Amino acid sequence: MNTKLTRITVALTALCGIAAVQAAGDEPIQPIKPPANINLGMAELGKKLYFDPRLSKSGFISCNSCHNLSMGGTDNLPTSIGDKWQQGPINAPTVLNSSLNVAQFWDGRAADLKEQAGGPIANPGEMAFSHTLAVGVLESIPGYVREFKQVFGKDKIDIEQVTAAIAEFEKTLVTPNSRFDQWLLGKKDALTKDELEGYKLFKDSGCVACHHGEAVGGTSFQKMGLVEPYKTTAAAQGRADVTKKDADRMMFKVPTLRNVELTYPYFHDGAYWTLKEAVDIMGRLQLGKKFSEQENAKIVAFLKTLTGDQPNFQLPILPPSSDQTPRPTPFGK
Amino acid sequence: MNTKLTRITVALTALCGIAAVQAAGDEPIQPIKPPANINLGMAELGKKLYFDPRLSKSGFISCNSCHNLSMGGTDNLPTSIGDKWQQGPINAPTVLNSSLNVAQFWDGRAADLKEQAGGPIANPGEMAFSHTLAVGVLESIPGYVREFKQVFGKDKIDIEQVTAAIAEFEKTLVTPNSRFDQWLLGKKDALTKDELEGYKLFKDSGCVACHHGEAVGGTSFQKMGLVEPYKTTAAAQGRADVTKKDADRMMFKVPTLRNVELTYPYFHDGAYWTLKEAVDIMGRLQLGKKFSEQENAKIVAFLKTLTGDQPNFQLPILPPSSDQTPRPTPFGK
Repeated sequence: MNTKLTRITVALTALCGIAAVQAAGDEPIQPIKPPANINLGMAELGKKLYFDPRLSKSGFISCNSCHNLSMGGTDNLPTSIGDKWQQGPINAPTVLNSSLNVAQFWDGRAADLKEQAGGPIANPGEMAFSHTLAVGVLESIPGYVREFKQVFGKDKIDIEQVTAAIAEFEKTLVTPNSRFDQWLLGKKDALTKDELEGYKLFKDSGCVACHHGEAVGGTSFQKMGLVEPYKTTAAAQGRADVTKKDADRMMFKVPTLRNVELTYPYFHDGAYWTLKEAVDIMGRLQLGKKFSEQENAKIVAFLKTLTGDQPNFQLPILPPSSDQTPRPTPFGK
Repeated sequence: MNTKLTRITVALTALCGIAAVQAAGDEPIQPIKPPANINLGMAELGKKLYFDPRLSKSGFISCNSCHNLSMGGTDNLPTSIGDKWQQGPINAPTVLNSSLNVAQFWDGRAADLKEQAGGPIANPGEMAFSHTLAVGVLESIPGYVREFKQVFGKDKIDIEQVTAAIAEFEKTLVTPNSRFDQWLLGKKDALTKDELEGYKLFKDSGCVACHHGEAVGGTSFQKMGLVEPYKTTAAAQGRADVTKKDADRMMFKVPTLRNVELTYPYFHDGAYWTLKEAVDIMGRLQLGKKFSEQENAKIVAFLKTLTGDQPNFQLPILPPSSDQTPRPTPFGK
């Protein structure tokens, strides 16, 4: 290629790039950016902890048990299974793109991923351990002692380091490059006609009022059952469980719709397994709108374009326990 | 390097190679060979199935739950946790190097990995599903339907394909390149003096009578408690549970000692957590020999050199269920 042609090509590419960013800028949904400023050593340590069932009383349940990275960062169950097969009260939200959430848990009771990570470890219905016991286990494992020291430069492991490392790993779990993002970034043939019409319906019907931004949700708390009440047997009351205010009843964090094809079943009670049902219920209960079969199918087709690049890393190998490691008690009191 | 020198170097290297193989040939333990003749497509499919909890009634338990590839191919529990938190009757043996076993399960009731793979899926105390239901789930998942067709060239999925794929993946789970294997292959500084003395004790005391070959075990059934009876509350009777013969009571498959540092707790009842205890008990009960503290420590040091390269692959991403997929019933009847 001669120099002049090269220059023109570069200029055109730059222009297209700007145009694409502007196009994306006009849309209520933004492309996911790759994770930035990750402390790689800390994230690598956090990945091991995320997969380590020794953070539970039983030695059987890890973060990955309920936020399974092979399955969209969820367990694909209505409610999760905890220590001694206890039934959880609420659907496990996906860990994918959770760094983009305004707060963590359905009721937003944790401000960020670091605060969230400590929750399940000490929850008697989930991992049923305690922070002290978890740290005690880690301190008995020479491989962890070395790695914590390397990452944090301290002589003792504490729960702050544990949750910071898990959160750092979780920050890497974004899923860029969905077909929808490719379209946002200028690849106009990335979506089919039906998918585009589905997106238009999604915008024009008002879904974007809550489901917008980089994560297509996750930025606000909204009432579940705005126009018509949501019928459920689940006891969870959303924000009200945190604030104890009546006005906050059934106010739940709007879930991300990224990878929603993978994160069934849907809603805080996990009561619905198909996107078709979920779209129908959202239309009627939140927008007072009954989508036709055809409209519903188009919105579902659009939603399936939000599946991005899934986590892509080597299965972590955990450092072995030592003779001093306190033993798990799956069947003990 | 001039041509003559190159020729000499090549000749010397070849000679050393032969010498190393001969040295290894003289030893009762053989280096692990990398897996051969693997059908890569089938193994890749088997890897997904191995990690897929949808092969269980609850949608929560996969092969990897109890044979966790992050933890030496075991669950590091005395006995495993099955559907509804049922307590298993026996310690989960490692899946690592299990292709080298003469038969599968502690009592050898499955002839090979393919036959073994079908067991836990249909065992009411483990994954609590049935082969028919498992195949039904897989047939409802478009990603699996495509991949099975690609691998097996048939229109319908059946349990034979499922277990063949899992077994093919498991054949890849060998762990070559341990420090001990490096030593066997001629790297004379791969072991410390204590480790070498431990190996000599291991040979001279008779441990190699049962623990020999590529897997350092796995090739025969032997009586647990030969010189002195083994005290346990576990009901398992080993081969006798299969053959119903009194003579086969307490005859268990000799476990592999490869990666034994990672596969605690030890013995068929998982009653002992440290290699120190395991070596002491084996010495007394099987050989009528009480190892001194120092001897015990050296044998343990040797055993830790048997940890090889652990599984090294990307976390598999599972194809999503469809609207037609039968739903898991973790809390149902």
